[in-house]
Amino acid sequence: MNILIVYAHPKPDSLTGALKDVAVQQLRSDGHEVAVSDLYAMGWKAHADPDDFGEVDETNFMLASGEAFDNGTLTADIRAEQEKLLWADTVLLHFPLWWFSMPAIMKGWVDRVFTCGFAYGAGGTAIPRYGAGVLSGKRAMLVVSIGGREPSYSDRGINGHIDDLLYPINHGILYYPGMDVLPAFPVYGTLRVNDERFEEIAHALRQRLSEIDKIDPINYRPQAGGDYDRTLRLHEGLERPGSRGFDLHVA
Amino acid sequence: MNILIVYAHPKPDSLTGALKDVAVQQLRSDGHEVAVSDLYAMGWKAHADPDDFGEVDETNFMLASGEAFDNGTLTADIRAEQEKLLWADTVLLHFPLWWFSMPAIMKGWVDRVFTCGFAYGAGGTAIPRYGAGVLSGKRAMLVVSIGGREPSYSDRGINGHIDDLLYPINHGILYYPGMDVLPAFPVYGTLRVNDERFEEIAHALRQRLSEIDKIDPINYRPQAGGDYDRTLRLHEGLERPGSRGFDLHVA
Repeated sequence: MNILIVYAHPKPDSLTGALKDVAVQQLRSDGHEVAVSDLYAMGWKAHADPDDFGEVDETNFMLASGEAFDNGTLTADIRAEQEKLLWADTVLLHFPLWWFSMPAIMKGWVDRVFTCGFAYGAGGTAIPRYGAGVLSGKRAMLVVSIGGREPSYSDRGINGHIDDLLYPINHGILYYPGMDVLPAFPVYGTLRVNDERFEEIAHALRQRLSEIDKIDPINYRPQAGGDYDRTLRLHEGLERPGSRGFDLHVA
Repeated sequence: MNILIVYAHPKPDSLTGALKDVAVQQLRSDGHEVAVSDLYAMGWKAHADPDDFGEVDETNFMLASGEAFDNGTLTADIRAEQEKLLWADTVLLHFPLWWFSMPAIMKGWVDRVFTCGFAYGAGGTAIPRYGAGVLSGKRAMLVVSIGGREPSYSDRGINGHIDDLLYPINHGILYYPGMDVLPAFPVYGTLRVNDERFEEIAHALRQRLSEIDKIDPINYRPQAGGDYDRTLRLHEGLERPGSRGFDLHVA
């Protein structure tokens, strides 16, 4: 397979960086082609602005990104990432959980690369989404380093369940343009990782990656599968017993 | 009151920009002191990296931000924002919802300004959090422009409920260092706002802002209030009937 790793940590000697290295090594030794977008090393521009678009007529910011996509005037760095996404069969995002989401530089990769026309439609452009779209048929998985301990990210944990915290990324960013999203690979307690613990984590990650083409994706409901009404609300009675919130959108 | 508006949109003539102007005008005419951090106009650096810290000994990135905070070696732009937060009685974040979260430049404001030692503790530094902390006693509110329509962000909407999508920000970023978080002010369907609709929205926002010192905050559970066990899981039986997920943490 072709595998794209998008990686964001300011320090190569971080746990996040070390796990990215483990992934690259394991996937290559399994015979995959691996490309890495190391956002800090690339000096990735994090903020989306009109300089991304070249010459456009449109004044609405979102629609302007669509015009630039259609006209091929997006900046070279953005077009290169879109090409990598099209090349990839599987996309891994490696990042530390900062303030319960991805670091700004990775959010800026999403904001700038997932343009109108490419990853979503707006205005006159309708694009299939949620289970369909430009990236459909591909797989995606998050590898997330988390400073806190697991119970505080469990079902009753004060931070909220990790699956709910990651839902805006898994469902809202990856599933939206059509990717099949695998359960995340979270690593907790990252402030206290000795060599022994690191080897355990690295072993578990290698194991996971060796099965990456076999793991069942999260069973999100496709938008066009008949489960939603015309206002995009889930039809009554389809939810699993006791299901609420984000969990409604898992079939 | 002293009110800090943190605002992120690349185009001043956007709806988000226009609503920020409405807020500034209304709050000043109500007699408040208003400071605006216009992140795009400031050329705010979005990505957190070791250049933020000056000279530090610590190699762990998170702990290094704490050492820099303690030693006063954080860059001037970060220290200025921390000062504004300390000055403010109320903080408003004005932003468009991009990929179900804040734009990267605003996430970078959080990542860089909410440093270890200031907004959170780690390693040897324990800092009270969730309902206590450096910003306790202050109020915060999100003003969010959303391209999609309201039903798709309702209880059964395909995108997830807006309150759940904003939970990582409201609870995880604002409540964490102690702020009282007011219900967000979301504006939907922002691709289609004519003059009449704009006046309705502006009127509703002015109304909301005129009551900003009286609105009841979201009743999140404080970490130290006895509702959580030692692993930071909510004690059994405390939840409201039918409550699940993020909603567990509202008393």
